Formats: sequence, structure tokens, C-alpha cells
Amino acid sequence: MSRYTLRMLIEKRGLTKSTQGRGTVVDLTQDASDWLHVIAAGEGQLTVFVPGSTAAVTTIEYESGCVADLEEALEQIAPSDRGYQHDNRWGDGNGYSHLRAALLGPSLVVPVSEGRCCLGTWQQIVLVDCDARPRDRKVIFSFVGSEGKGD
Amino acid sequence: MSRYTLRMLIEKRGLTKSTQGRGTVVDLTQDASDWLHVIAAGEGQLTVFVPGSTAAVTTIEYESGCVADLEEALEQIAPSDRGYQHDNRWGDGNGYSHLRAALLGPSLVVPVSEGRCCLGTWQQIVLVDCDARPRDRKVIFSFVGSEGKGD
Amino acid sequence: MSRYTLRMLIEKRGLTKSTQGRGTVVDLTQDASDWLHVIAAGEGQLTVFVPGSTAAVTTIEYESGCVADLEEALEQIAPSDRGYQHDNRWGDGNGYSHLRAALLGPSLVVPVSEGRCCLGTWQQIVLVDCDARPRDRKVIFSFVGSEGKGD
Repeated sequence: MSRYTLRMLIEKRGLTKSTQGRGTVVDLTQDASDWLHVIAAGEGQLTVFVPGSTAAVTTIEYESGCVADLEEALEQIAPSDRGYQHDNRWGDGNGYSHLRAALLGPSLVVPVSEGRCCLGTWQQIVLVDCDARPRDRKVIFSFVGSEGKGD
Repeated sequence: MSRYTLRMLIEKRGLTKSTQGRGTVVDLTQDASDWLHVIAAGEGQLTVFVPGSTAAVTTIEYESGCVADLEEALEQIAPSDRGYQHDNRWGDGNGYSHLRAALLGPSLVVPVSEGRCCLGTWQQIVLVDCDARPRDRKVIFSFVGSEGKGD
Repeated sequence: MSRYTLRMLIEKRGLTKSTQGRGTVVDLTQDASDWLHVIAAGEGQLTVFVPGSTAAVTTIEYESGCVADLEEALEQIAPSDRGYQHDNRWGDGNGYSHLRAALLGPSLVVPVSEGRCCLGTWQQIVLVDCDARPRDRKVIFSFVGSEGKGD
């Protein structure tokens, strides 16, 4: 699975997901997979990044139990029903959202081989929207690597 | 430490680590270092990724005190002795494992210079297996960058 | 925003930030932006990494409220006033620092387009120094991608 290449493939795509905020978890795996096919990716690295300080990216088994457990865990780590210094100063009531996003982190990097993400069977790439309100949330895919050989 | 290159080096390796689950922390630093030497890496970025939704990758000072502290902290963040919605639905009893893995995250990116990881003296690359049972755990190294000049 | 390139740009820079430890949050956004300009970066990926096992990198809205909230959340996740097994063995009193750093993680990857980080308006790249004492803290920027077209 090693490769030298003379022609480097660098691609970027922004996509938008409508969310309800408050811990909405959006499965991005199919979007990532489709996009890697469109750009004819070969070997390399896919970065998934969310611009914005109240959302995050990670992986999880995307089924309703895990998603509910994650929301509950985030509620314990940074409760939504208490005051935050951010709220005192800016009054937008999403201090807990900033905390959750900073702790989870906005970036994820997944190795790509033969144009496919090297994920586990039950592992999905997810956007976690921690904001207090519905958002149209931009996500960025970035690929650096080689071109695939095609089908 | 800047470099243009006409020949890009893209390499990937999967390796397997047997773990006991339940927070087992495995030091991957030497494996990463050895592999970068084998592929003759120069300048670039090493991604360490764990496929699977019940394990994670981070860095820590790999000594038994820190390792025990991390396990205890994870136990507080997502206790293993309570019920989770994931468990109610799937009955595999590792709801806490999914949570811990999602919060820690499955990917790490380390800058590489002259074929070496730019780590701190007491900083090790570690796999954290959060699952409830022993696993043979696959880890992926991915390098994108330039070829080194050799010894 | 897609690009093939025959000439790959791989750059790395270390910079040092003096911090007070104990959760000091340092905004690295301008440093990153300036450096991408200096190296004439085009399209690609910027990795921000902190060598050392008692500091971390993430993004947050860099204003004093959020920064104070983050410090308080980290204090709850890994309190500084209790004992840790790391401290029992090594006596350096920063067991909580190691925990916080391992949970936040030492690396962040930001997509770069036309030489600029694809960050949200209120999203800053930050170093979080979790150590128990003031430090001169090294941070590494690593860019892999293409050269920009210049101004």
C-alpha cells in the first residue's frame, strides 16, 4: 500500500448540513465516501473540519443509543442549565456549546486507501452540533494525496 | 526546515495490537518511529488512526501513574457500572466504551522532520482501547510528505 | 477549489510561547496566518501540534469568558487539588496537567485555501497550557499542500 506519486491531488469541498443544534449528531460518512469517489482519490489523508466554535467532529457508532448517550455525556461535562462567563459577557446563552466543541475538537483525519476511508465497520464520521439553536452548518472536506487508478 | 519536492511519498501501514480492553494503553511511539525509518520518510505529517468506535488515539507520558490516572478519569467521565442506551438496544455492554472513544477521538497527526516524529521528550503516542473485552486492535499509520535523504 | 500540483510544498516552523501554565490559553491564529503568508501556501492542510505531554491544541472563541469557562471545565474534569498516581511516583505535582492534555489532544488540522485557514469567524486556534507552572512552550506548524499564486 505504498506509493510514490509525481502528481499530487489536493481537493477541498464545503458542504452544508441543517441541524437542530443542542447536540445534533449528523452522519457524514456517505458524503465523505461519495466525494472521494468524485475526486478520484487514491492514497492519502482526508481531513474533516468544522469552521465555527460551537460544533465538533469525531467518530462514533451512529445508532440512536450511542447518539443519545453522547448527548447525555456532554450534558454532564458542560451542563446547559447553568451560567457561564461567556453568557454573562455576550448574552447568547451558548457558553456550554463553546465548551463542548473545544473539548471534542473541530478536526478529524482519516487515512484513505484506494479511494476509501479506512474506517471500522461500525465507525461513522460525525458532525456534533453543540449550539443552542438550529444552524445551517458548514463542514469542510480536504484531501491530500494521490489520484486513484479509477474503476 | 522548508522543502519543495517533486516526488511525494505516500505510505500507509496497518499493525495489530493485542489488548485487554478496559482502558488498556498501548505505546505506539517505537512502532511509529521504526516505520518512518523503514519507509525513509523525510518531512511531512504522520497520521495515527484507529479504525473502530471503541478505541482512541492521543499522546500521554507513558508511565504507569499517568496511565492509571487516565483510566480513572475515563471511568468518571463515562462510568462502566451504569446503564447506557446503546446497551439497552444492542446488549453488548460497551456503551461507555463508545462514549470514551468518541470524546478522545480516533486520530492524531504528528509533524515529521528528518524522518522523526516531533514529539516532546516525555510524550508518547498511545492507543487507548476503551472496549469492555480483549481485542486484537488494528492501528493505521499514514504518512504524506517527502522522502528523506537517507543516513 | 480543486488543484493538481507537480510541485509540493512541505513546510514546518517551530515557535515558542511563554505561558503561565495552569490553563493559560494562547491565541495562535495570527501566528498561523502570518506564517502561511510567509511560506506562500496555496491549498492544503495545516497541522498545529504541541510537543509535550502537559499542553494541548484546540479551537475556541478566544474571549475572556470562554477562556475562563474552559479553565473551569478542565478543573472539574481533572481537579488540581487532589492527588494523582503520577504525582505519587514522580512528585512533580502535575498529574492533572497530563490528564487534561491527553483528553484535549496535542494536534489540530485546519484546511487551508488560497493561503488562508478555513476557520469560522469566531473560531481561534489556541494552545492550552495545562501545566502547573510557567513554561516556554514550543508549538509546531506543519503545512503540506501546494504553493500559492502570490498576491
